[in-house]
Amino acid sequence: MNLKNLETCKGLIKGSYIDQAIQGTSQFNKLLETLLIHKKLPNIGYNDKIIELILNEISLMDSNNFIENIGVGEREGRIYSGLVEKRHYGFAHGIGRSGDITEQQPKAAGSSLIQKLTHSLVLDAMKLAGLEQSSLSNCLLLPMATGMTLALTMLTLKSINANNKRYVLWPRIDQKSCLKSIITAGLIPIVIPNQLDGDMIRTDLVAIEDKIKELGVDNILCVFSTTSCFAPRVPDKIIEISEICKRYNIGHIINNAYGLQCSKILHNISQACKLGRVDAFIQSTDKNFMVPVGGAIISGPNSEFIDQISRNYPGRANSSPILDVFITLLSMGKQGWLNLLKERKELLIYFNEQLSKFALENNEKLLNTINENKISFALTLSSNNFNNNEEIISNNNNNNNNTFSMIGSKLFSRSCSGSRVIDLKSNKKLLIGGLEFNNYGSHIDNYSTSYLTVACAIGITKLEIDTFIQRLSKLFNKK
Amino acid sequence: MNLKNLETCKGLIKGSYIDQAIQGTSQFNKLLETLLIHKKLPNIGYNDKIIELILNEISLMDSNNFIENIGVGEREGRIYSGLVEKRHYGFAHGIGRSGDITEQQPKAAGSSLIQKLTHSLVLDAMKLAGLEQSSLSNCLLLPMATGMTLALTMLTLKSINANNKRYVLWPRIDQKSCLKSIITAGLIPIVIPNQLDGDMIRTDLVAIEDKIKELGVDNILCVFSTTSCFAPRVPDKIIEISEICKRYNIGHIINNAYGLQCSKILHNISQACKLGRVDAFIQSTDKNFMVPVGGAIISGPNSEFIDQISRNYPGRANSSPILDVFITLLSMGKQGWLNLLKERKELLIYFNEQLSKFALENNEKLLNTINENKISFALTLSSNNFNNNEEIISNNNNNNNNTFSMIGSKLFSRSCSGSRVIDLKSNKKLLIGGLEFNNYGSHIDNYSTSYLTVACAIGITKLEIDTFIQRLSKLFNKK
Amino acid sequence: MNLKNLETCKGLIKGSYIDQAIQGTSQFNKLLETLLIHKKLPNIGYNDKIIELILNEISLMDSNNFIENIGVGEREGRIYSGLVEKRHYGFAHGIGRSGDITEQQPKAAGSSLIQKLTHSLVLDAMKLAGLEQSSLSNCLLLPMATGMTLALTMLTLKSINANNKRYVLWPRIDQKSCLKSIITAGLIPIVIPNQLDGDMIRTDLVAIEDKIKELGVDNILCVFSTTSCFAPRVPDKIIEISEICKRYNIGHIINNAYGLQCSKILHNISQACKLGRVDAFIQSTDKNFMVPVGGAIISGPNSEFIDQISRNYPGRANSSPILDVFITLLSMGKQGWLNLLKERKELLIYFNEQLSKFALENNEKLLNTINENKISFALTLSSNNFNNNEEIISNNNNNNNNTFSMIGSKLFSRSCSGSRVIDLKSNKKLLIGGLEFNNYGSHIDNYSTSYLTVACAIGITKLEIDTFIQRLSKLFNKK
Amino acid sequence: MNLKNLETCKGLIKGSYIDQAIQGTSQFNKLLETLLIHKKLPNIGYNDKIIELILNEISLMDSNNFIENIGVGEREGRIYSGLVEKRHYGFAHGIGRSGDITEQQPKAAGSSLIQKLTHSLVLDAMKLAGLEQSSLSNCLLLPMATGMTLALTMLTLKSINANNKRYVLWPRIDQKSCLKSIITAGLIPIVIPNQLDGDMIRTDLVAIEDKIKELGVDNILCVFSTTSCFAPRVPDKIIEISEICKRYNIGHIINNAYGLQCSKILHNISQACKLGRVDAFIQSTDKNFMVPVGGAIISGPNSEFIDQISRNYPGRANSSPILDVFITLLSMGKQGWLNLLKERKELLIYFNEQLSKFALENNEKLLNTINENKISFALTLSSNNFNNNEEIISNNNNNNNNTFSMIGSKLFSRSCSGSRVIDLKSNKKLLIGGLEFNNYGSHIDNYSTSYLTVACAIGITKLEIDTFIQRLSKLFNKK
Repeated sequence: MNLKNLETCKGLIKGSYIDQAIQGTSQFNKLLETLLIHKKLPNIGYNDKIIELILNEISLMDSNNFIENIGVGEREGRIYSGLVEKRHYGFAHGIGRSGDITEQQPKAAGSSLIQKLTHSLVLDAMKLAGLEQSSLSNCLLLPMATGMTLALTMLTLKSINANNKRYVLWPRIDQKSCLKSIITAGLIPIVIPNQLDGDMIRTDLVAIEDKIKELGVDNILCVFSTTSCFAPRVPDKIIEISEICKRYNIGHIINNAYGLQCSKILHNISQACKLGRVDAFIQSTDKNFMVPVGGAIISGPNSEFIDQISRNYPGRANSSPILDVFITLLSMGKQGWLNLLKERKELLIYFNEQLSKFALENNEKLLNTINENKISFALTLSSNNFNNNEEIISNNNNNNNNTFSMIGSKLFSRSCSGSRVIDLKSNKKLLIGGLEFNNYGSHIDNYSTSYLTVACAIGITKLEIDTFIQRLSKLFNKK
Repeated sequence: MNLKNLETCKGLIKGSYIDQAIQGTSQFNKLLETLLIHKKLPNIGYNDKIIELILNEISLMDSNNFIENIGVGEREGRIYSGLVEKRHYGFAHGIGRSGDITEQQPKAAGSSLIQKLTHSLVLDAMKLAGLEQSSLSNCLLLPMATGMTLALTMLTLKSINANNKRYVLWPRIDQKSCLKSIITAGLIPIVIPNQLDGDMIRTDLVAIEDKIKELGVDNILCVFSTTSCFAPRVPDKIIEISEICKRYNIGHIINNAYGLQCSKILHNISQACKLGRVDAFIQSTDKNFMVPVGGAIISGPNSEFIDQISRNYPGRANSSPILDVFITLLSMGKQGWLNLLKERKELLIYFNEQLSKFALENNEKLLNTINENKISFALTLSSNNFNNNEEIISNNNNNNNNTFSMIGSKLFSRSCSGSRVIDLKSNKKLLIGGLEFNNYGSHIDNYSTSYLTVACAIGITKLEIDTFIQRLSKLFNKK
Repeated sequence: MNLKNLETCKGLIKGSYIDQAIQGTSQFNKLLETLLIHKKLPNIGYNDKIIELILNEISLMDSNNFIENIGVGEREGRIYSGLVEKRHYGFAHGIGRSGDITEQQPKAAGSSLIQKLTHSLVLDAMKLAGLEQSSLSNCLLLPMATGMTLALTMLTLKSINANNKRYVLWPRIDQKSCLKSIITAGLIPIVIPNQLDGDMIRTDLVAIEDKIKELGVDNILCVFSTTSCFAPRVPDKIIEISEICKRYNIGHIINNAYGLQCSKILHNISQACKLGRVDAFIQSTDKNFMVPVGGAIISGPNSEFIDQISRNYPGRANSSPILDVFITLLSMGKQGWLNLLKERKELLIYFNEQLSKFALENNEKLLNTINENKISFALTLSSNNFNNNEEIISNNNNNNNNTFSMIGSKLFSRSCSGSRVIDLKSNKKLLIGGLEFNNYGSHIDNYSTSYLTVACAIGITKLEIDTFIQRLSKLFNKK
Repeated sequence: MNLKNLETCKGLIKGSYIDQAIQGTSQFNKLLETLLIHKKLPNIGYNDKIIELILNEISLMDSNNFIENIGVGEREGRIYSGLVEKRHYGFAHGIGRSGDITEQQPKAAGSSLIQKLTHSLVLDAMKLAGLEQSSLSNCLLLPMATGMTLALTMLTLKSINANNKRYVLWPRIDQKSCLKSIITAGLIPIVIPNQLDGDMIRTDLVAIEDKIKELGVDNILCVFSTTSCFAPRVPDKIIEISEICKRYNIGHIINNAYGLQCSKILHNISQACKLGRVDAFIQSTDKNFMVPVGGAIISGPNSEFIDQISRNYPGRANSSPILDVFITLLSMGKQGWLNLLKERKELLIYFNEQLSKFALENNEKLLNTINENKISFALTLSSNNFNNNEEIISNNNNNNNNTFSMIGSKLFSRSCSGSRVIDLKSNKKLLIGGLEFNNYGSHIDNYSTSYLTVACAIGITKLEIDTFIQRLSKLFNKK
């Protein structure tokens, strides 16, 4: 309520009570002012009531919510369903204009404000997580998941390069949408096979350089590297790759899908930006900020390239993933976000201990990847553990090959989601985008053992880890 | 958002867009100002978004919602569950203080404001419905249903009268909570039997006067009359009763439970207030304003008595029923409320026609009560209609007595609620509060026929009437 | 979704995925089954999503929510506003029937189920808090705050006793609604002055017995005792009072407003029920369960009396306060509820330490009441602390008398609510219900010092205590 | 509640009441069954309560909502903020898998079900709007607005064609995101200038054929035509274009942004699919179904091509726009949807009359386009109407050139959004994507007059039309 109306209330309620009540509004206005001026995560997150009030006041700035508005255009932000209106707090106009996805909308100053503030908050959160300022010239939060965002980034990179640059060097990562994003963009992926380093599967830098020479710098658009991934693969050597890219003057796109939660990866990105060439690094909003699937953040050291992507996006877009991030960052606040990062780090050590102990007790091995991969674990699976497990055997109908994959599905049917079994006995070949892969899922042709991967991702709880070990134990020891 | 913050937005969003956006806030503030100044139903109801924004802004005026508030008292409006906080828009302090249920709360100016505004809106709605200003000195919306509110009203009336005034003259109405409210108040009900007038069951004025003389004016606290009721009973002759009460100087409480929706009743109340004595008339919020059960409104021509009731209420009370009425009246607006009243009037005629037609087709009779009872209908039930209805007969197991009551339960099990069957063949006696009633439910000892009552209450739709007639037909004609 | 529909989904979604999905529904159904069978707080509270799903499924059991329902009665649970419908989860019929406030409603099985379950959950929570089974024959949650509930309890007690029993012996407690509840019930309060015991203000048992003899047992309805109260008053000696009541065969009503959070009080109530006579003890829902104001719980060792109160309530009532408690207890779960009780106990010690330290530093004294009053504290106020406080002096305009009361208002205007200043220099007299009280607010005629009371109530946080001490310090030391 | 639990309730509530209550659940289950089996718009739309219950029950099928679920993967659908969880009904997993955007998710059967059902409902709604079955082999609702969806469609078309097909023939439409979508896809737009036909701006079919011959069929990927557009441009001659495309065997993509609301356009699309070649037609969800910006629907006569687009989408995507459409179509129901279409048609005639009348009174002309453009109108603007309008003149500071554009901004600042002024006196040139356009916004180089366009879009009300005419009049007549 504005001061004039609060004063009017004195006609109804005792003046001294109203004077006291004014504090409520003043404290709220002050909080909002701080947000508008500093554009950073509040130190302590706001409660839901405050967040909703902020959203509702901002949505009053969009013309479709003006009390006296009438619309005679073809797109007036009319919302048929009250439920839909409510879940979007009346924001109907999406984001962007035809010229630029970050362009402000005259009809929707509120929506534009949310987009602008969210970008600032995301930059702040990225800095707090460990990225250096110089790597973060700017950021762009798009309402598309990582795959499509990677495609758009490469399309933009291509549009500002000579037309014959069509190859994308891609250190193998067995995650389909990465490969597909290259193909969707109309580019040609060149697989760079990984190499072993102890238990770890790592980037083959020599192979990259060899391939550059082989194909010719003029024909190569970029290297597409990956940070966050499933053990025993570890993050690509992005610092060295960025140095190669700089040397040969070719682009470098980093798929940092869920790497924002890992300070080691962020340190490496910062170094890569400083020492070599990085055009953009892309991360998922859902995997890092615990929102529903649907957004990705593009950032990089060169703000002009980020702007080009933004201008290359045709038309408007859905603002829902932006709203999710806005609400979430205001709700977390600085302390909440830092705590989440800290807890994950602590639980990583705990999970490592529990898995090591479990491996020891069950004659398995926790693959030694923790020094490089700070998110995912891989635990070997050897058949003798399941020879006597009647349930799994009977399910297999004497078909011993599937023993291991049964474990994944058993865990899943015990309400345990997210673990993945890589069964190398099956020696599966898979054709994706015209390319054939051996043992698809294991990131390398011939790994020495089958295994189970799990991840210690942001938001995981100690209870989940304990329950997982428990349910896994039951599966191993059922005789 | 206040102007200062809107101006701050210009650091983020183009100034001209913000200038445009300010309209949204201004239009909202203007609307709120109009409400605070005029305290009347808005001409056109507000949409839900606006209503919620109003509620959320007002709730910021309660200290438990101050961002910086800390509490060191025994009652600090802390709400454990987010769901509960949300459903009450953060209003935690209820209404009233120990001294008076309408007293304003220093800790909760917002809650007090809602209560105050709601009382003004209710007065406006009552006036729009047809009550004259002079009958509406004031009103009191209590978060108790009609029964308990009637008890409190009589307790207050007693507290300001001589101690020996213990009798309440009560023209029979077969609705338990009416009778119980007298007993709960520690008073003694004196039943005044009704008399027949054609098909109608009506007040026996002579019996009232006789009883006054018999018991002695000094011993009688009040007459407790009833307006809205089930046909073939019709509203009490409240004008004449009020004249008697004035003449003998005894109190007069009118139970106007769902009479706010009926202009004829309201006209009579206005006349009764003008020509005779009415201490208070009480109406339900749920039956008149389409909110959940739980509130009642006390009004009357003498504001001092209303204030006494308010002061007689010990302690605070739940504000939820007041919030429901506040939201509902803002949502209806003047036009919505008048339309609902108008539609009910029109559907009354339609329902009357449909029932008459149905009666004719089925050799039954629609009892002739429409001139006096403008809400409820009674349709005779004669057994020959059901002799061949196999379903009902088989359900009855040769027990013919229950044929009629089966109809009610059959309708109910066909998702048809609210009709009531009065089966006079059973000749039931019932003991309530120490008093014995013949044929309880029929308001009189010996009515001539069994019947089915239905009501044309506010909010009913043509579709409901048509479907009712359809389902009733199936029951009559199932052979 | 029921199994049949889940199976139908297999026409749209892979069978194996649906089989997995069935788990979600099964786990939910199992959880609901446990609640319906055991009717106790779940060990771990449910999340909001689950609670809302339970509410929505139960509300489908009320006829107004049947998809095919049509209504032809005068009260059909129609809800005009979508906002109102939503906040009540579609529950429109309130609770109770004309005969009994706990009677089940044929039209509203869902509402009835909520009421029934809530009563069971409340009994469980009371037991967990420390009340013995034998004191908890039953309970009744009414949608009225403590004051009105006390009035109804006394009205019921009176209705089953001889008519001349009109006196209520009332050990003085300076809280208006207690006294008013006696007067509202049409009874005559007899004040029993308290006596000093060190710093503590305590029950004068001899005065009670003397008064019983003086007025005559036949004229006394009950003793009305109080547990939870502001220091330096301490809870009444309810065990001894109950023994007196048993000996003289007079009623005993205990106002246990916020005593459910204190195990010492609950222990005493259990003993009082065992060793003497207790007709009912009444507690607030908001002060103990952290819901908005508006409900009270009546319990006692004699279930027949509780039933009589329930039958004495005329008509239906609002179900909103019951819904609040239902949601809250499901959300807390057993662990949540026990934790809240434990935290309060721990913070009581902490608050005591902080206040003692503060007193020492400021030449004040924390009154020695902690052994008996485990909720409230009183800190002396001596004028020399404020002689130099310019702000307070200037506000007082040379009117030294109000120095202390300024402290309360200063704290309040610093967003510090709940502390109360008792300024004995003013020697205020107050007339309530025809009775005159000296130094109203201090529970006794002539206490030796002015003081400030604060409470350590359920839900308070360490941060609140620390901030309070901080803000208080500023007030003391501003020079 | 399932039947077992309902039966368990009989331990708490009277059996006969529970039997009655079972109806509520049964009626709900029946309704859901009908939806699952028929996958069509319900005849009458569901109310919000029912829709939310459906959503909540379906969301229980997603593993992140299983009560006992634990997650050890990198993407577990954890949602940090309760507000975010609530607004998505717990749906966290988005849609699609890496292989295909319509692939079902094993972890999220519920999300997959919503996606599947929504596609069926959209197909049904499109059929009801007037598209013939044969044009609707399938549809794909993507969570991207029209521009990006057009780009993806063209990228897919390109991926299955020879690499040298790089030209897109594009009858000029002055809406930036159309042109940009071609460029984003890495293709080369070839502008086909329009020609005049009376007041109408129309497709130049000869120019298209000439250009095909000029560039060579082998180099042309497709024609990109447009239906819905601002008058005086009218929808492209898509039937004839499709015949040309068929003859030359080149692709044909139709931008049908807001054409779903117009039966004439849909008839033409059906004919074009039947008689010629149409690869896909794309429409916005917000402009046709009144949801917030963010979704587009691709359909066409050849389901294989739709599938290819779906497979070409890399990775998952946001499900929010799909949820919006799902909720909205269930809320509308068949009757609601048909009524909206019918009302728009009726208001089109009304708007035409009002504008004609206005034109006559103000010496302007309503351009004669109604026979072909059934959505948008253009009203001439001639300067003599504004020579005396002081407000506009003073704002212009003697700069007569901007007189007309002031009208647009004046209307906007009077809470009138959506009208656009095309001021041809300024003779603006604009460079977009390297192409220069004369008089950008008017779709043709030299139209004869300046004008104001407005649209009669779905959801517009008579009140809006009347208010628009009123506010426009004030602007014209202010002297």
